Amino acid sequence: MDDNVRAFPEPTLRRLPAYHRFLKILAARGRPVVSCTHIATELGLDPTQVRKDIQVTGIVGKPRVGYLVPELIDAIETFLGWKNSTDAFLVGVGHLGTALLGYGGFREYGLNIVAAFDKSPEKIGTQVHGREVQSVDSMAELAQRMHILIGILTVPADSAQDLADLLVFGGIRAVWNFTPVKLHLPPAIIVENVQLSASLAVLSNKLAESLKADVPQEG
Amino acid sequence: MDDNVRAFPEPTLRRLPAYHRFLKILAARGRPVVSCTHIATELGLDPTQVRKDIQVTGIVGKPRVGYLVPELIDAIETFLGWKNSTDAFLVGVGHLGTALLGYGGFREYGLNIVAAFDKSPEKIGTQVHGREVQSVDSMAELAQRMHILIGILTVPADSAQDLADLLVFGGIRAVWNFTPVKLHLPPAIIVENVQLSASLAVLSNKLAESLKADVPQEG
Repeated sequence: MDDNVRAFPEPTLRRLPAYHRFLKILAARGRPVVSCTHIATELGLDPTQVRKDIQVTGIVGKPRVGYLVPELIDAIETFLGWKNSTDAFLVGVGHLGTALLGYGGFREYGLNIVAAFDKSPEKIGTQVHGREVQSVDSMAELAQRMHILIGILTVPADSAQDLADLLVFGGIRAVWNFTPVKLHLPPAIIVENVQLSASLAVLSNKLAESLKADVPQEG
Repeated sequence: MDDNVRAFPEPTLRRLPAYHRFLKILAARGRPVVSCTHIATELGLDPTQVRKDIQVTGIVGKPRVGYLVPELIDAIETFLGWKNSTDAFLVGVGHLGTALLGYGGFREYGLNIVAAFDKSPEKIGTQVHGREVQSVDSMAELAQRMHILIGILTVPADSAQDLADLLVFGGIRAVWNFTPVKLHLPPAIIVENVQLSASLAVLSNKLAESLKADVPQEG
């Protein structure tokens, strides 16, 4: 571990985009400054937590004044790497893959999907949101040649591990995993899982508990 | 708070679908029993944690033997409410909304998307994955009439709050929020946020830190 490498708390990283979104709204309204308390109230958080989160960006607020809105927006964007875009490959042009290819907003967050891959002969060669779908057979070699760092995995569960292995073989360093599969990859590879089934499990369970509370109690 | 209402830890709820997935693989391979240690090793977790998680379903394992695989699958499905499907409305038939409508897997998790709504006159009346897109103007009344409990929000950020309010007006009790907006809703309404920008922030930051570690240190 050297001085350059610091692990920032994940909850902090997860909250910063929400701060950024709120700050952009304030900027659009012409607000020059904002306090931790204001951000905390809007987002239902503790002001001390907000102050600590913002500190990781290197920005220090002025007591009784707060932060300059444009300066704080800039600091968060720089800290999260949104100013330098990173090229990514997307693997699996099904419904979800197509949705992600069609979403223009990732570029704002520094993610640039430069190519899309699929196994299916019917899809290879077609255009999806301006990108030609290529065969997964050429993926590893292309990733290597183009120095691609991020792979977005939106394939069916049964081919997730094989295609993740292929991405790693091609030199990618991080996998954004939208499949429900727990990937087994070398420890140096970063894996971030988006688990919709887990999110749905929380929703369903809370709903069931809330409905139980509706039922009048019997003696 | 009455005896019927227990809040289960969210991390437990989030892990249960992963256990379920692994158990289905074991079942397909004809494995009759499984231990906490086996599940823990496969998923990179602590065996004690796995045991505690499984306890919430009411299933107790046999010492030195473990759990019967079919029994445990059944207990998790019952606990997560996957056996009784809940009807949901989806609002916002853009790229993501279309992807969610096309995904057949939600039914397995007890979620049944019965209708889809949009504001755009070009979309209203069209068929998307077997459902006719309806106007948001009729949404609240229909939700009330059909006793819909879950609303899935996949609209642009600037109409998120208004449409969430409309869902609540229609009597829905839980919002699965795919927009980046922090919704302000009555406290009784359950909101589960899927924040792709937060997930991407974690991925990008970890990747940046991992790349810094590559650079050889100078004097």
